[in-house]
Amino acid sequence: MSGPGVDRVFERLERLYAIGGGLGANRPEYSPEEDEAHELAAAWMEEAGLEVSRDGAGNLLGVRGEARVWTGSHLDSVPSGGRFDGALGVVAGIEAAERLAGTPLAVVAFRGEEVGCLGSRACCGGAGPLPAVFVELHVEQGPRLEQAGAALGVATGIVGYARREVRFEGRAGHAGTTPMDAREDALCAAAEFVLRVRRAAGGIEGAVATVGRLEVEPGGVNVIPGGVTLTVDARAPDEERLDRLLAALDLAREPRTPPVAFDEGVRRALAEEAARLGVEAVELPSGAGHDAGILAAAGVASGMLFVRSLAGGISHHPDEESSPEDIALAVDVLAATLNRLASSTRIDRV
Amino acid sequence: MSGPGVDRVFERLERLYAIGGGLGANRPEYSPEEDEAHELAAAWMEEAGLEVSRDGAGNLLGVRGEARVWTGSHLDSVPSGGRFDGALGVVAGIEAAERLAGTPLAVVAFRGEEVGCLGSRACCGGAGPLPAVFVELHVEQGPRLEQAGAALGVATGIVGYARREVRFEGRAGHAGTTPMDAREDALCAAAEFVLRVRRAAGGIEGAVATVGRLEVEPGGVNVIPGGVTLTVDARAPDEERLDRLLAALDLAREPRTPPVAFDEGVRRALAEEAARLGVEAVELPSGAGHDAGILAAAGVASGMLFVRSLAGGISHHPDEESSPEDIALAVDVLAATLNRLASSTRIDRV
Repeated sequence: MSGPGVDRVFERLERLYAIGGGLGANRPEYSPEEDEAHELAAAWMEEAGLEVSRDGAGNLLGVRGEARVWTGSHLDSVPSGGRFDGALGVVAGIEAAERLAGTPLAVVAFRGEEVGCLGSRACCGGAGPLPAVFVELHVEQGPRLEQAGAALGVATGIVGYARREVRFEGRAGHAGTTPMDAREDALCAAAEFVLRVRRAAGGIEGAVATVGRLEVEPGGVNVIPGGVTLTVDARAPDEERLDRLLAALDLAREPRTPPVAFDEGVRRALAEEAARLGVEAVELPSGAGHDAGILAAAGVASGMLFVRSLAGGISHHPDEESSPEDIALAVDVLAATLNRLASSTRIDRV
Repeated sequence: MSGPGVDRVFERLERLYAIGGGLGANRPEYSPEEDEAHELAAAWMEEAGLEVSRDGAGNLLGVRGEARVWTGSHLDSVPSGGRFDGALGVVAGIEAAERLAGTPLAVVAFRGEEVGCLGSRACCGGAGPLPAVFVELHVEQGPRLEQAGAALGVATGIVGYARREVRFEGRAGHAGTTPMDAREDALCAAAEFVLRVRRAAGGIEGAVATVGRLEVEPGGVNVIPGGVTLTVDARAPDEERLDRLLAALDLAREPRTPPVAFDEGVRRALAEEAARLGVEAVELPSGAGHDAGILAAAGVASGMLFVRSLAGGISHHPDEESSPEDIALAVDVLAATLNRLASSTRIDRV
């Protein structure tokens, strides 16, 4: 990609990042700040020759022609979020669309991705039109590409996950007068579980599990904990591994969000276009949920291109970072893939 | 002890417990409720033929004659405390004094024991007179006597202890996108420490250690914990064991409150008077701090008689319980011991 192109991408990301002021990106779902981001993106879409519309859920759509192939992402952010999460996929999509003048395609900015993919879910529920093919460019938000020394990745799918609150009951007591062998310390039981969660996930390739919240009652310095409530977030790339992980945590019968596999054709197109540009894109599952996962689950042939996250993969944080070089490459691969899919979709699918 | 005596003890405990209304005992240090308890106790002291005075710290003293031997405890309580903690020692002391008409002795109600023994510390610091000998009757607040099937215990001393806040630093990250082997999870490190605390104390006879408070940051369900702050409360009956315990927790150089040994003569008098009344009093260290420990550390020959706590030793709670039979025995042993010490102190010590 040419210098001016990536400069414009960064300049636009910076304008979105500045909305609302304060530390980091602050564009909650359906807030005036998310609205302002949608207004900016709408203007850029028009500059790129796209026809702007909004669906019933407030998702923003920039369309050119008989658009069966869409790209895009979201413009909302977590509080104090990073520059790239979501915004990159929209800005890069507009950049690719500008380059592919004449190619029928659409760029979408979904609403409220950070709070359960509100916009893409509504879209799949009938709030607006759906694409035939969807490609989302997104930062990895993890350390795998950085560790592998790879600029780009192609997501194989979205992991399945279960979340659960677990309660440990003990017996509160005086920290000085209750002998060790007469205690029912809820925090000791919880600590054993925390380590068991780490061990269980560590033993299953590609699985992760996290105790992110833990509260001790009554919480006195000199009182034996009588109760602990904690949360477990457990994820695995496929049903079989998710089953094994949940069984190891005695959560086998918990409700779960099943894993989603991305479309083989879209994955192949992304990998081959990357290779044609001299980049080997690493295959990896996405540990986080994304709009592309919602569309895939609804039957849209979908795929995702990941850009290497730097700084250990930190995300949802102002320190989130990706390099101009990697982003330039990603836009090149995205544009080439959209072009290829738009041609084949016109001929083969529609 | 006769029926009317123990009935009166329970009736007075009930009157103190009712002060302020609400759930359990609620008589914070230097509050109107603690004042009201002191007024009631002052009236009961006068009924028992004691001369009432107050020292510079507001401690209440009921004196008869040349009183070298004192008994008593405290009348403040934790929020939602039990019927017996502190109050029993004062009420039983008054009961013993009434029975020992003619014996020179004093009954004291110290202020603010629950917040670091304010009253007894002030007394030792010069706020009032000090006894030559001090005997405190108190509920055990633990399960040892109940487990041993013993109504009474004689405290060998007060355990030494150290308290410390410990901080674990990790790296916050996305719970879905950060592989297990790339994590620095502060909660996993803290969980290992919690179990190490239990193991270290469990391996030293008479030692206890507790993590009573633990806070996770940032505390998101889907965020790897980036920091944990917890508290450790570690106690052991003597310096050697406290040293070993703190060394095992890497807290060797932490400031500590040293253990206190009670007076051999007072311990022997309590044990022998119990035996004379047909009760074998178990020897045990006190895991909790008490006014008697403050006086002992200041050089006063001190000792404590424990009454069996029921219900697993629960204390600082409305469920705190001891039986009328055990309390009747305890008042008998207390009165006999005070009588013996008052005689010997008159002859041998003063």
